[in-house]
Amino acid sequence: MFDHQIYIKRREELKKKFKSGLLLFLGNDEAPINYPANTYNFRQDSSFLYYFGLPIPNLAGIIDVDENKEYLFGYEYTLEDIVWMGPQPKLAELAERVGVQNSDSISNLKKFLKTKVSKGVKIHFLPLYRGEHNLKLASLLDDDPFKINRKASKKLIEAVVEQRSVKAPEEIAEIEYALEIAYQMHTTAMRMAKPGLTENDIYAALNGIALSLGNGVSFHPIISINGQTLHNHFHGNQLQEGKLLVCDAGAESYEFYSSDITRTIPVGGKFSQRQKDIYEIVLTAQKNAINMIKPGVKHVDVHLTAAKIIAAGLIQLGIMKGNPGEAVKAGAHALFFPHGLGHMMGLDVHDMEGLGEQYVGYDDKTKRSEQFGLAYLRLAKELKSGFVFTCEPGIYFIPELIDQWKAKKKLKNFINYDKVEEYRNFGGIRIEDNILVTENGYKVLGRLIPKEVSDVEAAYNAV
Amino acid sequence: MFDHQIYIKRREELKKKFKSGLLLFLGNDEAPINYPANTYNFRQDSSFLYYFGLPIPNLAGIIDVDENKEYLFGYEYTLEDIVWMGPQPKLAELAERVGVQNSDSISNLKKFLKTKVSKGVKIHFLPLYRGEHNLKLASLLDDDPFKINRKASKKLIEAVVEQRSVKAPEEIAEIEYALEIAYQMHTTAMRMAKPGLTENDIYAALNGIALSLGNGVSFHPIISINGQTLHNHFHGNQLQEGKLLVCDAGAESYEFYSSDITRTIPVGGKFSQRQKDIYEIVLTAQKNAINMIKPGVKHVDVHLTAAKIIAAGLIQLGIMKGNPGEAVKAGAHALFFPHGLGHMMGLDVHDMEGLGEQYVGYDDKTKRSEQFGLAYLRLAKELKSGFVFTCEPGIYFIPELIDQWKAKKKLKNFINYDKVEEYRNFGGIRIEDNILVTENGYKVLGRLIPKEVSDVEAAYNAV
Repeated sequence: MFDHQIYIKRREELKKKFKSGLLLFLGNDEAPINYPANTYNFRQDSSFLYYFGLPIPNLAGIIDVDENKEYLFGYEYTLEDIVWMGPQPKLAELAERVGVQNSDSISNLKKFLKTKVSKGVKIHFLPLYRGEHNLKLASLLDDDPFKINRKASKKLIEAVVEQRSVKAPEEIAEIEYALEIAYQMHTTAMRMAKPGLTENDIYAALNGIALSLGNGVSFHPIISINGQTLHNHFHGNQLQEGKLLVCDAGAESYEFYSSDITRTIPVGGKFSQRQKDIYEIVLTAQKNAINMIKPGVKHVDVHLTAAKIIAAGLIQLGIMKGNPGEAVKAGAHALFFPHGLGHMMGLDVHDMEGLGEQYVGYDDKTKRSEQFGLAYLRLAKELKSGFVFTCEPGIYFIPELIDQWKAKKKLKNFINYDKVEEYRNFGGIRIEDNILVTENGYKVLGRLIPKEVSDVEAAYNAV
Repeated sequence: MFDHQIYIKRREELKKKFKSGLLLFLGNDEAPINYPANTYNFRQDSSFLYYFGLPIPNLAGIIDVDENKEYLFGYEYTLEDIVWMGPQPKLAELAERVGVQNSDSISNLKKFLKTKVSKGVKIHFLPLYRGEHNLKLASLLDDDPFKINRKASKKLIEAVVEQRSVKAPEEIAEIEYALEIAYQMHTTAMRMAKPGLTENDIYAALNGIALSLGNGVSFHPIISINGQTLHNHFHGNQLQEGKLLVCDAGAESYEFYSSDITRTIPVGGKFSQRQKDIYEIVLTAQKNAINMIKPGVKHVDVHLTAAKIIAAGLIQLGIMKGNPGEAVKAGAHALFFPHGLGHMMGLDVHDMEGLGEQYVGYDDKTKRSEQFGLAYLRLAKELKSGFVFTCEPGIYFIPELIDQWKAKKKLKNFINYDKVEEYRNFGGIRIEDNILVTENGYKVLGRLIPKEVSDVEAAYNAV
């Protein structure tokens, strides 16, 4: 945990945005795997962590704006518990660790909220994403568990998103540490990308590294020789010489901040000329996109720049045709680059995604496109100093998508479908780094993980 | 997955126990970590796995007893999904894999159930353990999500427990494979128990091994130099020479069967005489308990035999006093051995615990004791051929419990509190293996993981 002053400051800042009301942050509970007592690794809710820091189940944090008071509600351990669990801190001591003055048993929370509601106090809460929470909050507020989520507070969402979007130095340090773990993970993957090993051998090794240096992986790693399948969580294939291995994996720091890195590695350690051609396009797109990053730039324009470079590269190879700008305007590049360039990062690897992408990545000045590909862009709005997000262009040859487009002769003025067929079994390439917007430009966070063709090849042979 | 004949046979056997009604098995859904799209490793519900085999989210399996029909309800992937996820099997094909004739979209399940209910058909379902499921089932049946769990079918619970309790050869083979993974994990832990390393180094390594050879760990491993704290999931301590490291860890096979092994290792590879004295008592208790196992024996008697051997051993060391049989009758041993000797194992590491321990471990002939210690015994009833369970006696010196008892001079005729104080910082020792009840006796499953003092010491030095 950070120093308690940090949490006090964060809550003060949030409080300033409200004239009245009660801000309720429900911490997460244990999540059962296959029966109540066998639970997944506990993960605290990220907004709770941001304002109340404690990585412990069954807590609720409250900011009472009207009375200018803060509360921690939680479970007070009994002597019986302590016999089984060892010495446990008192609730008041936990509250003190995050600078909260008042604490009480969670069993009194319902009565506490009821009294407030009866006085006409508005209870602000964030969107819920676990069924347990729908039940819990509905029970606390005597509301309908099926409908309560619709009552999440837009005002609180907007205030939290505004605050969490700008990363403080202690947060950036955590992301850098998560990136140091990612460095170890990805350079290990590069050394392990040998024919005969399986995707799962690497998957298991990366999980082990992430657990040994931090809290574990920040999301299911994608370790796949079928990188063209974007949502691919299967990792049972054997690595074959000549295939490209997409490794999209990050770690969580001890303070629950994420990293999210992708590298694409030639199985056997040597890119073919054809692979190199595509790889260099993706890398050029990424470097140029990163170079544009500074406060005031709209991220949708960064995305479109990357798309144009991809289109230009594919035109040079004869896979696309026509003018790159027009091709991108028409959305033709999306056959090969169908996803967004990046997303916010922080306490969540897709930071604050649970609060709503429309608040995190868009605003009144930037509306979501409806075009295939561009519609998937998670972050489009104007960049501010302190934003941290991913930059992850890619080129994929997705047989199912190619067939779909080809059958309709979609955008045939920009796509050379005959040439595309030659790449049908190519797979996919993605290169991803994590970027901080600084006052005047950007900083690529973390130690440089090999990404030049020659560096990736050299990393394969490193001892 | 097993051959579809196995699932057909299991469902046939279950069906025979019902004259009428509809048996509904809800499969698990994805479980969000910190926002809806970032999910934990998917784990299918164990009873769903047992009867319908498919390790895929968002399914429901139905056995319609009256019409003698079976159904699989699930999500039919769209072309859009396939673009992102790669080729996906059709629902009908999934159903076929487990020998189910009928399949339909999950969106039609509510209507299907409503029609049945309107005809007076009783819907039998098992207890729910995830909030999402309370909401889902309540929505399907137009019921109250807060109360629906009380309507779980006792008849279905009893039928499922009876069937799942007796393991078939293909299940035992899976448990043996999970134990082979455990062998790799525990011998690795023995080699790693070196001063200067941390508990977490071992924790991470064991997780990596479990993922590389199977589905990962079957429960949070306990890797602790404070083994006296029974529910200890902290693993941040550094290993110190002279301490005992309790490693309680198991793996899940590819077919989702568990192993659950405990070994206690002297940090630095050499037991002290004092450690050896206690260790040998635990080991003797375990061996004698295992030797008693055969059909017809009540497991509570196996537990009490282990307790008596522990009491006798502690009397010999002067820690307890009086007659071992009387001490155990009075419950005095429970200061040092406060938990049960074992629990059922299978698709859940505490097999079927979510269905209710009163059904799994107790029956009309065997009621739960109220005595401290014995009350925690999960499996007490008469053993049958085909049962698989753990045998895990232990001796612990729990400072908080010692203080509690000593203050009350509890059972002071059996406990030499002055002598106990000498062991205050001893820690704990537990030794656990997994046992199958055979037709005439028992079989300790899996490869022998070092447990004799000399073997554990030798394993520390193995390359």
